[in-house]
Amino acid sequence: MSRTRVHNFAISLDGFGSGEPQSLEAPFGHAGQRLHEWMFATRYWGPDGGEGVDDAFARRFADGFGAEIMGANKFGPPGWQDDPQWRGWWGEDPPFHTPTYVLTHRPRPSMEMEGGTTFHFLEASPVEALEVARAAAGDLDVRIGGGATVVRDFLAAGLVDLMHVVQVPIVLGRGVRLWDGLEGLESDYAVEAVSSPSGVTHLTFTRRPAS
Amino acid sequence: MSRTRVHNFAISLDGFGSGEPQSLEAPFGHAGQRLHEWMFATRYWGPDGGEGVDDAFARRFADGFGAEIMGANKFGPPGWQDDPQWRGWWGEDPPFHTPTYVLTHRPRPSMEMEGGTTFHFLEASPVEALEVARAAAGDLDVRIGGGATVVRDFLAAGLVDLMHVVQVPIVLGRGVRLWDGLEGLESDYAVEAVSSPSGVTHLTFTRRPAS
Repeated sequence: MSRTRVHNFAISLDGFGSGEPQSLEAPFGHAGQRLHEWMFATRYWGPDGGEGVDDAFARRFADGFGAEIMGANKFGPPGWQDDPQWRGWWGEDPPFHTPTYVLTHRPRPSMEMEGGTTFHFLEASPVEALEVARAAAGDLDVRIGGGATVVRDFLAAGLVDLMHVVQVPIVLGRGVRLWDGLEGLESDYAVEAVSSPSGVTHLTFTRRPAS
Repeated sequence: MSRTRVHNFAISLDGFGSGEPQSLEAPFGHAGQRLHEWMFATRYWGPDGGEGVDDAFARRFADGFGAEIMGANKFGPPGWQDDPQWRGWWGEDPPFHTPTYVLTHRPRPSMEMEGGTTFHFLEASPVEALEVARAAAGDLDVRIGGGATVVRDFLAAGLVDLMHVVQVPIVLGRGVRLWDGLEGLESDYAVEAVSSPSGVTHLTFTRRPAS
């Protein structure tokens, strides 16, 4: 049965999934690349990387997905909706390889990219977007790709079956928070934490079976 | 040389060191005892407890201190300053066993308790309070006992040499935040994270030698 999953979602100790301000030059604002250095050091990312616990988690990003849903702020820098030429950060062969639904109040025509990624633009609630993405994914899973606001909205709506969060030992102080409005989230999930020699801590939230 | 240390300071995933509202019946507000269950399960706390990583960390609370500094909100529930009979939460033999400085805008006469604890009441900045506590502690260390506001103030003032934070896998949603205003804290510290089979993650911030 198709599940809804979040993978490799990195946050600071103080719970920010991105710094600020976000821009074309700095997609994660003042966080720079600090939230993702752990991933760049994995074999999943490059041939010189390690194959320990960080790598094992990182690989699950590509494991069994038939669609992705992302927020407008993941697709481009503020104002991308005003640029008809904007095709995302990732060049002509984005790393999604599936239908990918971008939530935006200003939809535009779909864009077929190389490698199996097609961007579709939806003005929709989390429930509605998930319905569309599930239909496209078939038996495969749907990835909630971020940013923090979108992950939080899907969690608040009770739509996430598995979430993998990577806590990076930095204090960002400002940016976009993941945890706001999610009081008691743990009651619906089995939560595990495992720290890595790299310094990050992997948190997994696995939804408990309905009783 | 005397150092300034924080131990066993528990926070939620979203960084709250206490829930709300704090009261005589609920010192940690809606958090109840959830931030401290990991500690109640240690041998340090009781004879049936375990002696793994949680216990090893918990014991450092009692290790080499000559004074403690705490905030008014740790000493009593809101309004304790209006109750001349209030002598703290801990009965006649509090677990500090040293001079213990309570930061308050409404100082009162010192209280000598059993077991070596004497409460002194100070209206003072972090720097001033630390000077007084250090003079009392001699060669021993000074504990910053919390709550979150006081720990944050001492961190912001650059006065903490070692901090042990215990991150509990719950989302409180509201309360008193530890990390606010501490952007870039990690740059002054070696940070380690180790997760425990109990589910909590121990974070240690050890100040780097001045270069």
